[in-house]
Amino acid sequence: MKKVAILGSTGSIGTQALDVIEQNREEFKVSVISCASRIELLEEQIKKFAPEAVVTAEEKDALYLSRKYPHIEADFGVNGLNAAASGDADIILNSLVGMRGLVPTYYAAKSGKTIAFANKETLVAGGELIMKTAAENDARLLPVDSEHSAIFQCLEGNEGRNVRRILLTASGGPFRGYKREQLEKVTLEQALKHPKWNMGAKISIDSATMMNKGLEVIEARWLFDIPAEKIEIIVHPQSVVHSMVEYEDTAVIAQLGMPDMRVPIAYALAYPKRLALNFTPLDLFTYASNLTFEKPDKEVFKCIQFAYDALAAGGSMTTVLNAANEELVSAFLGKKILFTDIQDNIERVLNAHICRYNLSLDDILAVDRETREKTKELLR
Amino acid sequence: MKKVAILGSTGSIGTQALDVIEQNREEFKVSVISCASRIELLEEQIKKFAPEAVVTAEEKDALYLSRKYPHIEADFGVNGLNAAASGDADIILNSLVGMRGLVPTYYAAKSGKTIAFANKETLVAGGELIMKTAAENDARLLPVDSEHSAIFQCLEGNEGRNVRRILLTASGGPFRGYKREQLEKVTLEQALKHPKWNMGAKISIDSATMMNKGLEVIEARWLFDIPAEKIEIIVHPQSVVHSMVEYEDTAVIAQLGMPDMRVPIAYALAYPKRLALNFTPLDLFTYASNLTFEKPDKEVFKCIQFAYDALAAGGSMTTVLNAANEELVSAFLGKKILFTDIQDNIERVLNAHICRYNLSLDDILAVDRETREKTKELLR
Repeated sequence: MKKVAILGSTGSIGTQALDVIEQNREEFKVSVISCASRIELLEEQIKKFAPEAVVTAEEKDALYLSRKYPHIEADFGVNGLNAAASGDADIILNSLVGMRGLVPTYYAAKSGKTIAFANKETLVAGGELIMKTAAENDARLLPVDSEHSAIFQCLEGNEGRNVRRILLTASGGPFRGYKREQLEKVTLEQALKHPKWNMGAKISIDSATMMNKGLEVIEARWLFDIPAEKIEIIVHPQSVVHSMVEYEDTAVIAQLGMPDMRVPIAYALAYPKRLALNFTPLDLFTYASNLTFEKPDKEVFKCIQFAYDALAAGGSMTTVLNAANEELVSAFLGKKILFTDIQDNIERVLNAHICRYNLSLDDILAVDRETREKTKELLR
Repeated sequence: MKKVAILGSTGSIGTQALDVIEQNREEFKVSVISCASRIELLEEQIKKFAPEAVVTAEEKDALYLSRKYPHIEADFGVNGLNAAASGDADIILNSLVGMRGLVPTYYAAKSGKTIAFANKETLVAGGELIMKTAAENDARLLPVDSEHSAIFQCLEGNEGRNVRRILLTASGGPFRGYKREQLEKVTLEQALKHPKWNMGAKISIDSATMMNKGLEVIEARWLFDIPAEKIEIIVHPQSVVHSMVEYEDTAVIAQLGMPDMRVPIAYALAYPKRLALNFTPLDLFTYASNLTFEKPDKEVFKCIQFAYDALAAGGSMTTVLNAANEELVSAFLGKKILFTDIQDNIERVLNAHICRYNLSLDDILAVDRETREKTKELLR
């Protein structure tokens, strides 16, 4: 039985992970859960999964919980998350959203943990450092993102065989086919409505700008230790093929499935097992009867190229990309800017940045802070 | 460097295998080649690949070759093939067509060889015996058929994981969508013209009747030790997805590629390596930009159901299926019967057969002979 710590248990990935665990009680024991603000839902999870410890963002919430559930350890803030990440769980599910996942991931890597990894921003901001730390401490990152899980599955059994390309599929988001003029007019409500996946707000906007795919290119570069020029984005609106790997012999291995995040979550948690899951199977005669592939429009969706360029620049450039994007998405979610202001302002921030290299954890956090300040200044 | 014996070196698979070997001279040495009647082509192959031995069907051809190439051993007939199959090659490529592959496969299995296997009729006629013999002697069959190679590749890295279904793709052949009345009127020329693959005559007709897919179901049942009810046929006219495996967690792993038999041939010959092949890669934006899946029409293409029913009956029933089919395809190729006479007469032969079990090699050969006689009688 695996002990699982879930960082971000009340979010989209966290709740789906608990659903998988509930259906596979003989496989998993929940040791820690954490959330930022949805304390009511966290309480429900406490009752259902009886964790040993909980972590909240605020001290007052931890105090409240420790009084109400005296047999449970309650901690809070960054230190609480770091303790959970380096505690005695067998596997840490990092389903935090955004940059705040970086420090706990660093501590989990330093503690040699197996990390089920759903927090792509962390690898965008600090991929080099995290992968180096993981390698030095025999930690392992197992992807939870459906695309990266697919790639991981397509690489299984192919150790030592040369990969020609990773074919990273993209739904294209709700604005696939739009021209620049149309993109300028889209509303928050339209941007939040993803055609295939039901996801959190940040990732939905990233998907609409296609920055999500850019972030995934960077994530793949680090997770699979493969140069960016071998990673190609393929727009596949049906989201049935979750990604593919092309080998040197021209054979392409693909992973397909329903758009159900519980499948990659279960894969990472149970790895190297595959659990018997009673979810809806893929019906090739109806749901998946017609699959199409097309090129992404990098002219209109500029974020894709930003990601490749930032990777090519290396060092702090992807940290800046991530921080600027997080701030601008947040501003868009707060209805302070237009949809196209996201990519246009990212471009300005990237162009103004002078790249730094060989960053420590503190350096990364500093670059992140500075970038957020500069981005906010741009919007004033 | 692997020593390769090629049984059937002048056929479609044999020549493509030699093409792979020619492009990868540092990996392979051709030790034996064999052919039935294309002696001129065999001579070219002798000059190019300098094998240690050759096998022909007729004694006179072997005599001719042994005089002309005194440093090469020349043998003939079934005994010659059997000797090649059990000789000192590291890998036996069985690219014989039809039932005549059975006995050499049996000898290769008895000798504990690795067999690159392109001769599905052998497993249809005697799958139980061949797999038992292989298991007893640590022989291994590596699939060369593009579908079975795809399944094999999709199973790699998934040892011990439960397969829910094998999804065997079928182009549907040149008469996909035809009704019975249309099928009755098709000509030999139409039947020989496969929409996607360039293949030998026997397999082209099998593809047109969809018996090929039935034979492949039986082949998959034996190669992968999986019950027939877990093997589903999916019509996929573009022939880009070469087959898929669905696992218990609902994830589907697929293998895709161009319709180039050299890729699965190379996979089997080089296994567990993947060679770097300079063949045309799959272009998802053009060649594979639209993939469709549909159900096979088992009412019109009756051969599919014959295969499942014969597998369910077990014992000699699939031997009979294969023998009747070979004779009827041969009659159709000789323009002696109509296209639909193939399936209608297979049905008659199967219905008349009283199944026998636990067959020895001699039993299988006897059932085969008897069935051919009965089938010919039907046509008189």
